[in-house]
Amino acid sequence: MACFVSFSCTSCHWKKKAFMSKKEICRKKFSSKVRSNPDLLVAVLPKTPTPQKDPVQEKDQTEKGNETLVNEESFFSLILNRVVDTVDDAMVHFNRAFFPPKIDPQARKPTLVILGTGWAAHSLIKVIDTVKYDVKVISPRNYFLFTPMLPSTAVGTVEFRSIVETFRTANPFVDYLEAYCVDVDLQKQLTLCESNIPGEKRKFQIFYDYLVIAVGASTNTFGTPGVQEHCYFLKEISDARGLRRAIVERFELASFPDISKEEKCRLLSFVVVGGGPTGCEFAAELHDFLVQDLKRYYPKLFEDVQVILLQSGDSILTQFDRTLQEKALENFRQSNIRVITKARVTEVTSTHILLVDGREIPYGLAVWAAGNGTQPLTRLLLSKIPEQKEARGRLLVDPWLRVKGALNVFAVGDCAAVEPVPLPATAQVAGQQGAYLARLFNRDYCLSCPVPESEGNSTAPLAKWRPGGSPEIAKPFQFLSLGILAYIGRERAMAQIETGLEKIKMAGVLTYLLWQSVYITKQVSFRNRVLVLFDWFKTRVFGRDMSQF
Amino acid sequence: MACFVSFSCTSCHWKKKAFMSKKEICRKKFSSKVRSNPDLLVAVLPKTPTPQKDPVQEKDQTEKGNETLVNEESFFSLILNRVVDTVDDAMVHFNRAFFPPKIDPQARKPTLVILGTGWAAHSLIKVIDTVKYDVKVISPRNYFLFTPMLPSTAVGTVEFRSIVETFRTANPFVDYLEAYCVDVDLQKQLTLCESNIPGEKRKFQIFYDYLVIAVGASTNTFGTPGVQEHCYFLKEISDARGLRRAIVERFELASFPDISKEEKCRLLSFVVVGGGPTGCEFAAELHDFLVQDLKRYYPKLFEDVQVILLQSGDSILTQFDRTLQEKALENFRQSNIRVITKARVTEVTSTHILLVDGREIPYGLAVWAAGNGTQPLTRLLLSKIPEQKEARGRLLVDPWLRVKGALNVFAVGDCAAVEPVPLPATAQVAGQQGAYLARLFNRDYCLSCPVPESEGNSTAPLAKWRPGGSPEIAKPFQFLSLGILAYIGRERAMAQIETGLEKIKMAGVLTYLLWQSVYITKQVSFRNRVLVLFDWFKTRVFGRDMSQF
Repeated sequence: MACFVSFSCTSCHWKKKAFMSKKEICRKKFSSKVRSNPDLLVAVLPKTPTPQKDPVQEKDQTEKGNETLVNEESFFSLILNRVVDTVDDAMVHFNRAFFPPKIDPQARKPTLVILGTGWAAHSLIKVIDTVKYDVKVISPRNYFLFTPMLPSTAVGTVEFRSIVETFRTANPFVDYLEAYCVDVDLQKQLTLCESNIPGEKRKFQIFYDYLVIAVGASTNTFGTPGVQEHCYFLKEISDARGLRRAIVERFELASFPDISKEEKCRLLSFVVVGGGPTGCEFAAELHDFLVQDLKRYYPKLFEDVQVILLQSGDSILTQFDRTLQEKALENFRQSNIRVITKARVTEVTSTHILLVDGREIPYGLAVWAAGNGTQPLTRLLLSKIPEQKEARGRLLVDPWLRVKGALNVFAVGDCAAVEPVPLPATAQVAGQQGAYLARLFNRDYCLSCPVPESEGNSTAPLAKWRPGGSPEIAKPFQFLSLGILAYIGRERAMAQIETGLEKIKMAGVLTYLLWQSVYITKQVSFRNRVLVLFDWFKTRVFGRDMSQF
Repeated sequence: MACFVSFSCTSCHWKKKAFMSKKEICRKKFSSKVRSNPDLLVAVLPKTPTPQKDPVQEKDQTEKGNETLVNEESFFSLILNRVVDTVDDAMVHFNRAFFPPKIDPQARKPTLVILGTGWAAHSLIKVIDTVKYDVKVISPRNYFLFTPMLPSTAVGTVEFRSIVETFRTANPFVDYLEAYCVDVDLQKQLTLCESNIPGEKRKFQIFYDYLVIAVGASTNTFGTPGVQEHCYFLKEISDARGLRRAIVERFELASFPDISKEEKCRLLSFVVVGGGPTGCEFAAELHDFLVQDLKRYYPKLFEDVQVILLQSGDSILTQFDRTLQEKALENFRQSNIRVITKARVTEVTSTHILLVDGREIPYGLAVWAAGNGTQPLTRLLLSKIPEQKEARGRLLVDPWLRVKGALNVFAVGDCAAVEPVPLPATAQVAGQQGAYLARLFNRDYCLSCPVPESEGNSTAPLAKWRPGGSPEIAKPFQFLSLGILAYIGRERAMAQIETGLEKIKMAGVLTYLLWQSVYITKQVSFRNRVLVLFDWFKTRVFGRDMSQF
């Protein structure tokens, strides 16, 4: 006799039906009570199924730690896997678009709560199967922001609305709540939220079966006095918008009749702190704005303008190869952007930036792009979970992105650090992690296996039963680096692509075209592509708008 | 003997050279001292040159008051004049664009200070000849705003930056100061200014030879309690931006898990106070936004949504003919916009709007578009100038737009009321007044003749000497109505055009195309035209963006 057998995990909502012969059922050693009524069969998954390991591979793992989990596949097989995944994702999109799911409001589906609307959360909700999960997104902002182009918007090369996508547009089948998650009750599986609507401070709780923390990072001021009060940041649209207004404001101030020459020079000194991609791209975009637009309208003021880039390290854009760093420096020199390396900022006053070597740099506008800090929620969770005591501002997660010490909780993007070697806090990593997690959810793995304290290298991998035998182990997250790009001004960009075999390095005007093509391709929707292209056209033909609002 | 004679006015900087025979010089009764040295001749203009009047016309004027000055020309001769003026203006533009003036910083030119960057100021600086005048614009906002499309931007049909033009772009040869004018010293001819840059409150004074007040109007709350605290206005970009954010916020609030049915209904009740063009167009645009976009994303909430339009009078859009008013009402009925006439608001609480008849209307968002109020500067000037004691919130000006009781001061647009019958406070009037004033300045009229108190109908007209004889009197300002238009929702608009002979009335879908064509044509630059067209395309193809920032 053969019949359908329902498998389900006792600790989560994982369920699966399989067609099995009586013999197979017996082999699985189900209890006699269950065996007598095969339709009610419940196959309980082991709490910590052990993957069948190759002894040689196991030895390797012991030597290299979990790093092997991340790097075990070759670059090309990784690409192949990613292509297969993408086809799979496309099917989800296709089904959602053309056969919208008929959702039964009575049906109890596991509730997946996602905190955040950044790269990780966005790619997660694009791929997640809302037929299987009741997805709720909680975030103070109701849109996804294409952060790599934020420096472009801060000077008006591209408009703000061209690089955002409303979350409800990204996937109309998820629920969205405009609120901050202020705390998580890990025992009761509750998120405690506070609305982000001015004048309407409401508090409420949302239950979760699974929780994905994708709250990103804040700006790191390293506790430098005066930074919070006097510097502009570059993390959110509100920052970029404030900056766009402030740049022109400095010129308007310097145009007042009673301004001394010295004060004029100070007002028109634009200082960028941080020589990473954000700082450098902003300096480059600012240079373009100054030379291509503001010079025309404030010709008398232009001789007093200067752009200064402060970097605490030896060089800028350290993610890139040394030769490319040199090219960026040379391009900045030609753009009259003064780069000061080994310049650690000790204090920011309302008019001056003080460096550790005693130098004082007068400034009119300062932008702080010096690093990533920890969001309040992440900090709270780190203090609450004993297993996270080793963490350095990011939640420690296992290779399946499960938060150490918190059952049914996952973390992705800038707020997560995959053990033992954290990946860089970039949009690329976050995006891939979000999509990876969505696939784990979609593919029926048992997600509630607790993550034990790391003993040697044994972590409990995610698994699912395959109809005819041993459990299938979910592949751990592997980051596929698609290369790095940076705009360095004067219509020049740099690119560094690693294929696993070799490193391709490029810089110049043609690379700028590549930069443009990649940024257009990576936009999250057709709408965004059209808008960004139109913005570029508009900037080239009409210049950047400098109306202040 | 014949020679060049310089004419100049003793009370202003007006100057003119003319080639005259000795005989002509004698006939002009110059003093013998002057006559003996013709090169130094100074012909002093009479303080109040009297125009040569036709006795019949004079009688007419006595009967009709100054109204005849405004309506004396026929519609078609007015159009002809306006065409000639436009050609003249185009020459100014052409010269400025292709033969940019070489400005000698040492040369003393009369200083023309313009307060404001609205319709009147914008058309003034577009036409003004910066070779003759040193033009300084003082305004808290550095851009011109195409106000008739503000309701469209408040829901995202058109983007904010598509309907603005930076003042420095509009005419790069004028100086712009980002400041409020807080007071005017009419004796010393000084404007007292305060910068509009956050954290940088600077005060300074600017001397003027001529002052043009074009500060527009504020919103009139009629002293209704609670309006300032709880209502949104629709005057500036900041208002429209706040509104755009707030509309979606109401939906996000209503999506929260703990909201009762009653509260949901209140939150989704959108009330517009004021049945004029702004209020009606906003209600229409809001309806489109709700039906075309928000319905898709908040399907569960949609049954609770309602739009209410409150009008204190009997009907809406009273500028239009009765038949068109009916059509607007019918269209609103079909759009489920509830129009409540004779509804005078007595108070606005944080949740309810109280009407004079005792009704209480619960609301989630209220927009106040009920009329024009007086700007603080206008109020101050009205209290300072004794001749303005009859004024009702707008500066009284003579037909040449000179402010009564203030030498060398002009007022245009919403803050000015041409005596005896004030023109409507519309963009059309303001724009025409600005251009008219610029032509007066450009055409060498003596602008410093004081405006005497009106005695009968004798005001001192602006004049200039014609080389061979009597003074040439400047034509007073005449408003040429180009018709009125209003968008009423569901891609329908209304138009009413008066040609002097007949009134053309239209309403419907085709009129919407006319509305679009007119609004595209009336954009102040080619850039704006392209951007607005693209925005319409974008809205049609991708819908309106509802990201909240």
